[in-house]
Amino acid sequence: MAEPTGWEPVPRSRTFELVLDRIEEQILAGKLRVGDRLPPERELVELLGVSRAAIREALRVLEAQGVVRAKVGTGPDSGSVIAALPTAGLTQLLRFHLALANFPLPDVVDTRAALERSSARLAAERAAAGRATDQLTALGELLARMDDPALTREQFNDCDTAFHVAIAEAGGNRLMADLTIAVRNAVRHPLLTAFHRITDWPAAAATLRAEHHAIHTAITAGDAEAAGELMEAHIHRFHHEVALPALAADDED
Amino acid sequence: MAEPTGWEPVPRSRTFELVLDRIEEQILAGKLRVGDRLPPERELVELLGVSRAAIREALRVLEAQGVVRAKVGTGPDSGSVIAALPTAGLTQLLRFHLALANFPLPDVVDTRAALERSSARLAAERAAAGRATDQLTALGELLARMDDPALTREQFNDCDTAFHVAIAEAGGNRLMADLTIAVRNAVRHPLLTAFHRITDWPAAAATLRAEHHAIHTAITAGDAEAAGELMEAHIHRFHHEVALPALAADDED
Repeated sequence: MAEPTGWEPVPRSRTFELVLDRIEEQILAGKLRVGDRLPPERELVELLGVSRAAIREALRVLEAQGVVRAKVGTGPDSGSVIAALPTAGLTQLLRFHLALANFPLPDVVDTRAALERSSARLAAERAAAGRATDQLTALGELLARMDDPALTREQFNDCDTAFHVAIAEAGGNRLMADLTIAVRNAVRHPLLTAFHRITDWPAAAATLRAEHHAIHTAITAGDAEAAGELMEAHIHRFHHEVALPALAADDED
Repeated sequence: MAEPTGWEPVPRSRTFELVLDRIEEQILAGKLRVGDRLPPERELVELLGVSRAAIREALRVLEAQGVVRAKVGTGPDSGSVIAALPTAGLTQLLRFHLALANFPLPDVVDTRAALERSSARLAAERAAAGRATDQLTALGELLARMDDPALTREQFNDCDTAFHVAIAEAGGNRLMADLTIAVRNAVRHPLLTAFHRITDWPAAAATLRAEHHAIHTAITAGDAEAAGELMEAHIHRFHHEVALPALAADDED
């Protein structure tokens, strides 16, 4: 039994957070590593002295974050495994935060520009080293598709997302790519709204196409400096001169 | 009673994930905004046709992510409120992902350099505009504290974290600052390990101090270009020339 001195009773509903803390301690201390199995639920109940409901709530949080993967069954193989999962949890969380406007759109844009400038530089460096050739081919194909004037604004926006994601992937930095994907997806809806408000869409699309081709050329030429500068300028120009003013106009309606 | 339109019953198991999807749909569609109350648990049970346990598991995930804040009580005021919470959930999740080595340390370092280059630029721009004066004063005080040769490596590391966080805050971009804080905290432990492996610590600390002072001078002078370049070079130099080799040496032991 725990000695009660100096310890205040825990409100029952917050117990799962304490369970989370215990598990986080083990992970940050390196005692639980990828592939390790957590003790089964009923054993965690005994080890931590909390209810099974609290354990399950904590495990669901960790599953949603991608930190553990649930194992089905109730035998000796049951329990949850520490996972090196893809960043679905991370990108979902970023989507939530951005959707709930925790962050102003201009801040998101500047963050995007910072990340994508680096991704473009890395992609150019890898291109210069003869790597990422498949991704560079895919980039070229995407640009060719975007050159089709018959594309709707939705289709153009989807290709644009794919173009930026492909550059992040070509950069080969997984964390930067994941953050870029989350941020680009988070601005997908506001960007589409902005696209629909542009009166001379063919002219706006032509400028975007020209900027994309210039970025692609710099990357395939292995010119990291130019690729980074062009990417940063492209994102800043479009958002600050086109998208944000178009979206602000709405607020005055 | 809430109008049930827009809420479809959930068909099958992994039920809490489907509950999460339904709530995410409402948020991303803008139907649930910050400050809005979710229907009480028992009402969600009816609206979505799932068990109370599944609803609670989904709510715990959203609470841990900071997306909803729990409301105590069972009366008409009960239920969870959509929150614009600080990014505790986001930074915790990043800590987990980085602790579980989902991302190689060099990738984390390059991401850090990309974010902090931009933060330093923004801080300089705000300094040039006469803003962020309190944060700039705090920066100067931190540097003065770090000049004390009696500091332990732990204390130096803590001040270093505070220095980089203060610059991110001075940049005024909340998303960039939150990502910077999460990433800097994630590398806190490996950096400290590297600090302890450095044989000529006074020399290494002197170089770090000189670089910090140069960054601080560029920021207070409002020179965005120099501040960004110096920050990027500082992070790259220390990690690639000092920390990563020191940590790699361990692997050969």
